[in-house]
Amino acid sequence: MAVNFTVFEEFKAVDGVRLGVAQSHVRYANRDDMVVVELAEGTSVAGVFTTNAFCAAPVQICKQHLAEAAPRYLLINTGNANAGTGKQGYANAVKTCELLAEKTALAAAQILPFSTGVIGEPLNMPAFERGIPAALENLSADNWARAAKGIMTTDTLPKGFSTQFDVHGQTVTITGISKGAGMIMPNMATMLGFIATDAGISPALLQSWCKELADCSFNRITIDGDTSTNDSCMLMATGRSGVQISDVASPDAELVFSKLKEAFQLLAQAIVRDGEGATKFVTIDVSGAASQKEALDVAYTVAHSPLVKTAMFASDANWGRILAAVGRSGVQNFDLDRVQIYVDDVQIVENGGRCDSYTEAAGAAVFARSEFSVRIELGRGDVREQLWTTDLSHDYVTINADYRS
Amino acid sequence: MAVNFTVFEEFKAVDGVRLGVAQSHVRYANRDDMVVVELAEGTSVAGVFTTNAFCAAPVQICKQHLAEAAPRYLLINTGNANAGTGKQGYANAVKTCELLAEKTALAAAQILPFSTGVIGEPLNMPAFERGIPAALENLSADNWARAAKGIMTTDTLPKGFSTQFDVHGQTVTITGISKGAGMIMPNMATMLGFIATDAGISPALLQSWCKELADCSFNRITIDGDTSTNDSCMLMATGRSGVQISDVASPDAELVFSKLKEAFQLLAQAIVRDGEGATKFVTIDVSGAASQKEALDVAYTVAHSPLVKTAMFASDANWGRILAAVGRSGVQNFDLDRVQIYVDDVQIVENGGRCDSYTEAAGAAVFARSEFSVRIELGRGDVREQLWTTDLSHDYVTINADYRS
Repeated sequence: MAVNFTVFEEFKAVDGVRLGVAQSHVRYANRDDMVVVELAEGTSVAGVFTTNAFCAAPVQICKQHLAEAAPRYLLINTGNANAGTGKQGYANAVKTCELLAEKTALAAAQILPFSTGVIGEPLNMPAFERGIPAALENLSADNWARAAKGIMTTDTLPKGFSTQFDVHGQTVTITGISKGAGMIMPNMATMLGFIATDAGISPALLQSWCKELADCSFNRITIDGDTSTNDSCMLMATGRSGVQISDVASPDAELVFSKLKEAFQLLAQAIVRDGEGATKFVTIDVSGAASQKEALDVAYTVAHSPLVKTAMFASDANWGRILAAVGRSGVQNFDLDRVQIYVDDVQIVENGGRCDSYTEAAGAAVFARSEFSVRIELGRGDVREQLWTTDLSHDYVTINADYRS
Repeated sequence: MAVNFTVFEEFKAVDGVRLGVAQSHVRYANRDDMVVVELAEGTSVAGVFTTNAFCAAPVQICKQHLAEAAPRYLLINTGNANAGTGKQGYANAVKTCELLAEKTALAAAQILPFSTGVIGEPLNMPAFERGIPAALENLSADNWARAAKGIMTTDTLPKGFSTQFDVHGQTVTITGISKGAGMIMPNMATMLGFIATDAGISPALLQSWCKELADCSFNRITIDGDTSTNDSCMLMATGRSGVQISDVASPDAELVFSKLKEAFQLLAQAIVRDGEGATKFVTIDVSGAASQKEALDVAYTVAHSPLVKTAMFASDANWGRILAAVGRSGVQNFDLDRVQIYVDDVQIVENGGRCDSYTEAAGAAVFARSEFSVRIELGRGDVREQLWTTDLSHDYVTINADYRS
């Protein structure tokens, strides 16, 4: 029941990147569940990872390997998160890297592992022995669409985006895939994102961009407020287009960054559109805050309120619930009289009370839309933050009461 | 669908307290929706109120009146919270106090107003003109049971408790009522609690006790994490039993406090048992924390996780979700290797990984109970905190998607 979701189909190959996909049977039979991403020598790789204190074994290893060596392969499995699995889980994750390193005559540190799926189950090692060679066999630059399906868990649809643009007569390509539908409040979620470009970007700049891009995309979505143990988002730059970004202040850098931002935001929003049980795609837009923390505290409190989310599901313009959520968000010395609340172009709250021009019918018409924004103006300062979220529906309960994710 | 809920029936009158109940039609016809509580002269009154920055007009006035004068009446309506109603809402709440003051030849400051119900609707003033005289007409010391019903909103059952005990040959009575089922994370919530005793307790001591008692009862329950704009909990001591508490360190003070604590906790837990859509009553018990904040952060993060709550609803011992919630609770320098997790007497997590003796069947047997505890030992210090919560069921969604509360 995804919201206004169009499956992306026109994937462009990124020179320097090949993908292999296999059925390894990590957890389920008869589905692609293992993806290997091969990166050409010289590719810059940057990543941001979950802030959950109990981050999964593959996340720990990923961070170490990224610091130690130039990555040449990503190894991704779905079906098992390899989180909460203790020392054995860590050893298993190391072993998966070693298996791929052996087959490719590389060091294990050049392999970055990613896992998503059930927490607390031992990793199925024979599946990796089976899946890795099978995935290597079908490595291809044109495998993005299949890879997008191969990393899905409770996702109902594969998520991808691809764009090409011109820089001084040279074509630059950006292609990415993502996954995630539940346990989604990435701070750096059970989301994974993999975005590649053939622009040339130094590892230091790429890391700085990756953080900045995640902070306006994957780190601004929430479905249930549950930050996963496995969230990872990787940005890869092969340099094969011939376009090299050296001056961060240049128009070229600005162009590439803006295109990457589009890719990050669309991939992040695709996760929300396919959120568990989602029937609404809602933008929470908080402005007039005194600080970023304040803006985000208000936005997340509204986005996580079960009462606000069930009202959205019901298409009930129950703005009292929004007001109550704003009021409990922890902002100090809050002056209600300065607060304005709009849904799309309809003002509901004016200076803290119900707007004179507001009618229940006007509010209900907006809440009935599958996609709308809730704009909250605090009147305290100049900071603005936006995030994207879903409603809380019967299907959310059904999915999470039935599925051992 | 309340969980292990027994409707309390043996209310004892509290000397010095009379209650009047009426059908005022604030919002709905044909139901008791207005309660007047008369307090004898000399009654000490203490209160704790919502910390929501946008507290309702009656809460603002209640705090002012409590500071200005000795309260003689509480005026309580259900059906309309008089919150988010601006200046008119404030004026209306003042007017309701004036109406009751006129009829009783008191000052308006001696009236404490309480409202609960829908947010953002103008208060129905003719209902007060109708309801106040009607409630005054049936003032009686034996009206607690009817009053408990008269303050209900989405509650399915009335909540009350009463106890009598002996202090040096004199009988002391404690009787209380509470309401609330949604928008419940009192920090001080849309809950109301009114507890009266005929012990004599000074206003200063009563206020200190009221805060302390709320912090181990109403401030330790959560249904949906939504702190209301109207939560209020009042403790009243008439002194009519002849038992006077003067020395807070005396055995008498200790006895009365412990009996009050029993009343507060049972009334608070009754709100959780009758939580919207609740099928489980779950104690979250966090020990080994380095600070109270840390213990509460972990406990509330687990209690609010939609993934943990839907697993409880499904009777699915999905402990990975508990572990992930603990990991995202914001505790700094968290060492997973020291974490132990138990459900009732079954240890699931031992030193951060799955306990060797744990079986899925043993976990599932506990999760299938209507009432169980999740105990999380952090291994960081000596602080322990407990709170009480519910699962997240289809009925929760149905109730909140259908009812304009």
